Amino acid sequence: MSKVAAVIGGGVIGGGWAARFLLNGWDVQVYDPDPQAERKIGEVMANARRSLPGLTDVALPAEGELRFCASIAEAVAGAEWIQESVPERLEIKHATFAEVQATCARDAVIGSSTSGFKPSELQQGAARPGQIMVAHPFNPVYLLPLIELVPGDAGEEALVERAKATLTSLGMHPLHLKKEIDAHVADRFLEAVWREALWLVKDGIATTEEIDDAIRYGFGIRWAQMGLFETYRVAGGEAGMKHFMAQFGPALKWPWTKLMDVPEFNEELVDLIAGQSDAQSGHHSIRELERIRDNNLVTMMRGLKAQNWGAGALLNAQEKLMRADEPAAADLSADQLVRTARRTVPLDWTDYNGHMTESRYLHAFADATDRFMEIIGCDADYIQSGGSYFTAETHIRHLDEVHAGAVIEIETQVIMGEGKKMHLFHTMREGERVLATGEHFLLHVSLETRKPSAPSPEIEANLVRFAQGHARLPKPEGLGRAIGAVR
Amino acid sequence: MSKVAAVIGGGVIGGGWAARFLLNGWDVQVYDPDPQAERKIGEVMANARRSLPGLTDVALPAEGELRFCASIAEAVAGAEWIQESVPERLEIKHATFAEVQATCARDAVIGSSTSGFKPSELQQGAARPGQIMVAHPFNPVYLLPLIELVPGDAGEEALVERAKATLTSLGMHPLHLKKEIDAHVADRFLEAVWREALWLVKDGIATTEEIDDAIRYGFGIRWAQMGLFETYRVAGGEAGMKHFMAQFGPALKWPWTKLMDVPEFNEELVDLIAGQSDAQSGHHSIRELERIRDNNLVTMMRGLKAQNWGAGALLNAQEKLMRADEPAAADLSADQLVRTARRTVPLDWTDYNGHMTESRYLHAFADATDRFMEIIGCDADYIQSGGSYFTAETHIRHLDEVHAGAVIEIETQVIMGEGKKMHLFHTMREGERVLATGEHFLLHVSLETRKPSAPSPEIEANLVRFAQGHARLPKPEGLGRAIGAVR
Repeated sequence: MSKVAAVIGGGVIGGGWAARFLLNGWDVQVYDPDPQAERKIGEVMANARRSLPGLTDVALPAEGELRFCASIAEAVAGAEWIQESVPERLEIKHATFAEVQATCARDAVIGSSTSGFKPSELQQGAARPGQIMVAHPFNPVYLLPLIELVPGDAGEEALVERAKATLTSLGMHPLHLKKEIDAHVADRFLEAVWREALWLVKDGIATTEEIDDAIRYGFGIRWAQMGLFETYRVAGGEAGMKHFMAQFGPALKWPWTKLMDVPEFNEELVDLIAGQSDAQSGHHSIRELERIRDNNLVTMMRGLKAQNWGAGALLNAQEKLMRADEPAAADLSADQLVRTARRTVPLDWTDYNGHMTESRYLHAFADATDRFMEIIGCDADYIQSGGSYFTAETHIRHLDEVHAGAVIEIETQVIMGEGKKMHLFHTMREGERVLATGEHFLLHVSLETRKPSAPSPEIEANLVRFAQGHARLPKPEGLGRAIGAVR
Repeated sequence: MSKVAAVIGGGVIGGGWAARFLLNGWDVQVYDPDPQAERKIGEVMANARRSLPGLTDVALPAEGELRFCASIAEAVAGAEWIQESVPERLEIKHATFAEVQATCARDAVIGSSTSGFKPSELQQGAARPGQIMVAHPFNPVYLLPLIELVPGDAGEEALVERAKATLTSLGMHPLHLKKEIDAHVADRFLEAVWREALWLVKDGIATTEEIDDAIRYGFGIRWAQMGLFETYRVAGGEAGMKHFMAQFGPALKWPWTKLMDVPEFNEELVDLIAGQSDAQSGHHSIRELERIRDNNLVTMMRGLKAQNWGAGALLNAQEKLMRADEPAAADLSADQLVRTARRTVPLDWTDYNGHMTESRYLHAFADATDRFMEIIGCDADYIQSGGSYFTAETHIRHLDEVHAGAVIEIETQVIMGEGKKMHLFHTMREGERVLATGEHFLLHVSLETRKPSAPSPEIEANLVRFAQGHARLPKPEGLGRAIGAVR
């Protein structure tokens, strides 16, 4: 049975939470008195469906069920996670928690999306204060992994641990803050930067566009992968962090920020900034900008995934969890084809023709080959020990188009496998529709000499088992074909 | 003849400038009295050589010559750009400019890498104040495109325009600030964030690692592509920037930052931060961290390049400049093979086997096919009008390994071209060494019906011209081959 999450308040943030849960197979029960809530969540879901599933190289589980409820009591019934994303006013939050706790399960996590309030403030007057914790996400919630998890002194340890496990299973990173503070951690930085930015615009030093360029062409792209301190550690060089700080320390006394003052927040300032923002980005609608942003985030996060770093390392950790229920090699029958991939075509795999671009077919086939190698024992440890397979020859037939967001599956037939040689035939499908076939001839090599060599006896035995079993299956259509041979 | 740049001061920043110029074909003359300067610049150059050339899909020009000079006079001789990166003390800067201006060309740009001083401060007492401007880069200078260009009121307009053109040709983005201010723009944000971070660590709210995670899993990856204001514009949704600001505005009065105070910068604070940084990153050497950072930056910037956004859009603009001297289609003889690629293997194209991964061979071949399509007239405008070629079948022979940083070339032979059909044979080489061949059968399609259709008469005529010419050339080895046919 699916797990159930309750989402109380369904704006951009609540909708993002709903998307995270639904796309990870949870059922979601939404309470939001706004008559526009269904439309708004629908728009967030559309964005999430096009971007999240392709982040990992394993398909997500079947989407859960979304249900709109007429009351908080109905929404929290059966829920093991309840996420509050109502407006940032303490009395509204308190009233919401009172209603939630009147009927919810005693061991459900109650997370608050608040960006400013401390857990001790949220917990004031609650029936069970230890059940309520800050779980502060970042927009877009369906893509960005950071959650500031702040249980405060009243937080129940067992519940906090369960909250962390749940967030991790959703592909998020719970940053567990042990001490509470106004605005937690990330928003303190956002606030400091926001104040400074308002000054720079107000004083006519730079426009909103110039400020954005100063961020995204410089430190923004640094911070996307290493943050502040690790970036400075590298900048300090071999002399180390102490040396770096000695250099940077005195600047604290210099007039480099407007820290001592806050600009007056009046209509004039709002008009100035809104006008500049229109000039900068007004040629794109918000919907377009959302899609552009998500395309950018997906391509950068998938890039970091290939480097196994930062947000990409989190994706790999999530994928490992998702792969935990894959069958062991010994349990796979050699009497049938091996399923070597089930994944969603990522947003950044499409090209100017509006479909998956040709090299990504080979990307998916190569990953399927890697998976088959892993199945027969040629895994990361074995490769580390000095042996691997190199592809010598490839033949691809592109039979039909496929688009970002489609779930594709690859089945693999061993055509021949003995000694150093391995001949595989992959068939890629979306549902019943055959999209492409990939035929590959590989040689086992020594990574030291870079020359063909015998695989380990275990690998050869596993390969031969599949080769013998698959020899009894029909030969695939298109096998051994050459370009031009038929024409 | 190569252009000449002088680099005065050769640390991490000066070395980064030297790398930018050298790898873009300029000769560089360095003056730095530090006996370690040659070693230090060598280390920066090694990092730059492995990461910068693969950012674009066109190979950079031949590397310029690096020369170490015994005096400033020797370094600035013949230089049209002089970059000062000496320590951040005004009297040292003044003495350096005096020596530079004593002998340098009157129309050379003198750029200062200062992160804090205003141009009016740098220009004090100079022989020709209008020649000196702030050109503030960001580490790693060889990868990050941002340059804060601040000429101040004394700046000569023609010189500023030339400075902008030079920086653009180096793949950098000159952010021309019209008003001068302490610390320019970007470092004001860095300083604000740094102060807040020091407080959070000192008060025990978060460790350096937790702060870095709060940045890189959340707003850091947002800012890498859209900056501050555009991100908030999207967050504000259809209600617009004014609505967003109305929400955020009151927070200016809340206790969300430590803005009114500066932590005491003492040994205890330095030890606390340095110790946490060791715990966070000490298992990697600085050299390793530099390589990891550069791998991450390259993969994210190339991802943004495919999206034609942010730092990636800058790469595409640079590439367009680099492609300006490619021969026009009509000037290409049909009596010889067409060179369809000359590029450097990017850092993120390699895999666990330590060489270019198989799908990137097809990526490079597909780009070569795109280039050939462009040559015969099937360019972006034509595709926009509704016609394109789709690949139906591909055969690749992997003949030899190649590594990141290698310059690869692809030559293309048209095997057949008539009506809807196009049959191409690509050969990929590094120097004389054949790495792979790619044989491709394509069909012209209507992008509306997604069915085969006739190309425009111009395209067919161009294709037939190459097909007829290439038919007189020897058939390439490996043509028409099928997997298993020979074995």
